[in-house]
Amino acid sequence: MRRNHRNAIILLSGGLDSATCLAIARARGFAPLYTMAFDYGQRHRRELSAAAEIAHAQGAVEHRVIHIDLRQFGHSALTDRIDVPRDRDVLSAHDIPITYVPARNTIFLSYAMAWAEVLDCRDVFIGVNAVDYSGYPDCRPEFIAAFETMANLATRIGVENKTDENRFRIHAPLIRMSKAEIIRTGIDLGVDYSLTHSCYDPTDAGLACGHCDSCLLRKNGFAGAGVPDPTRYAPAP
Amino acid sequence: MRRNHRNAIILLSGGLDSATCLAIARARGFAPLYTMAFDYGQRHRRELSAAAEIAHAQGAVEHRVIHIDLRQFGHSALTDRIDVPRDRDVLSAHDIPITYVPARNTIFLSYAMAWAEVLDCRDVFIGVNAVDYSGYPDCRPEFIAAFETMANLATRIGVENKTDENRFRIHAPLIRMSKAEIIRTGIDLGVDYSLTHSCYDPTDAGLACGHCDSCLLRKNGFAGAGVPDPTRYAPAP
Repeated sequence: MRRNHRNAIILLSGGLDSATCLAIARARGFAPLYTMAFDYGQRHRRELSAAAEIAHAQGAVEHRVIHIDLRQFGHSALTDRIDVPRDRDVLSAHDIPITYVPARNTIFLSYAMAWAEVLDCRDVFIGVNAVDYSGYPDCRPEFIAAFETMANLATRIGVENKTDENRFRIHAPLIRMSKAEIIRTGIDLGVDYSLTHSCYDPTDAGLACGHCDSCLLRKNGFAGAGVPDPTRYAPAP
Repeated sequence: MRRNHRNAIILLSGGLDSATCLAIARARGFAPLYTMAFDYGQRHRRELSAAAEIAHAQGAVEHRVIHIDLRQFGHSALTDRIDVPRDRDVLSAHDIPITYVPARNTIFLSYAMAWAEVLDCRDVFIGVNAVDYSGYPDCRPEFIAAFETMANLATRIGVENKTDENRFRIHAPLIRMSKAEIIRTGIDLGVDYSLTHSCYDPTDAGLACGHCDSCLLRKNGFAGAGVPDPTRYAPAP
């Protein structure tokens, strides 16, 4: 039996995609909403404060920050001291980028599963995107589907609820959307994108570099959506 | 092409099962061996020192302890201040026990996946057992199979290696063995079980209580294997 009020957990990174994902969960009637961010040794803590602001602005009842140490696995420009690529042709790059963090989304979703067990929550939202991040193995629809299958076997919720209505579900509503579509959707739902942070390599004052993959995708998205970009970019040197 | 030397990662809890699992990985010719333990707010730190001793005794080249905080998800006698059940009829209990930690094995295997990506390792061993722990959803063969499928979609290793020989594999060699069979296997492989720790509720001096589910299964296993039990139990009060 479908419950009238279905809670949901939304993974928040502080970026544009997950902020939109939270707005979509709310628009689909999920309530109350719980948000979860990860402090995984990102070089730039601005993301974490952005996630907390977004959770508050969109009315999440609880926002948790989980401390995990992915730095010990290294091999990513997001956590190591590797130069972040600048002005790449992001829209045609399809290799696994240096900014890929090993097993990141699997670890994030595993923690969400643990929280879901405690909250008796069946619905987890993640803002992965297979269009802009086609080089990341763990941003593809087949990964999300396989994780969902595994999660229903791994949990008390999955074991005790075998019906289609009640099983554990991983929602990835942005997975096939372009950045411009994501932004248009978010604008329609009232997302305040000035709170979001995308840049991999911001200045000490928190201004976006404007040249990393993430800034380029973001700029391109606002241009494509025909919406003013509220991002504060660092002035050219 | 099968590589001559295949490294492997073995999850170690400090208990009897994972110590046997490490010995099996070595006996199957995997080398070098990497071991991984988790500091997840267990109430009893004796497990972690046991894991390090077992790794050293069996010649692991590197032993990592990952700090994760499962306490914030509560709901388990292993991490919360809940009384550990004593003298239960463990061999006929099939409910999900209070000692179940939400999503624990999923989180552990996700970290192993991350390390495997960095080591270019295709083989992860976990000592789960579906016989004695039939009440834990994440100790069942169908969970392990689903995790393996997901892992091959989530990782660079999985994406870049599509052949059966080279894909990412989760080995659970104990999954269908009785505790007595596990102990007999380990004795044949030279495992020093005096280093292992199983008790959920040891004394301050590290003596096993002899009455929790884990002690009962262990005692029963040594009796069934016809092998002297090297465990130091607390004297009856």
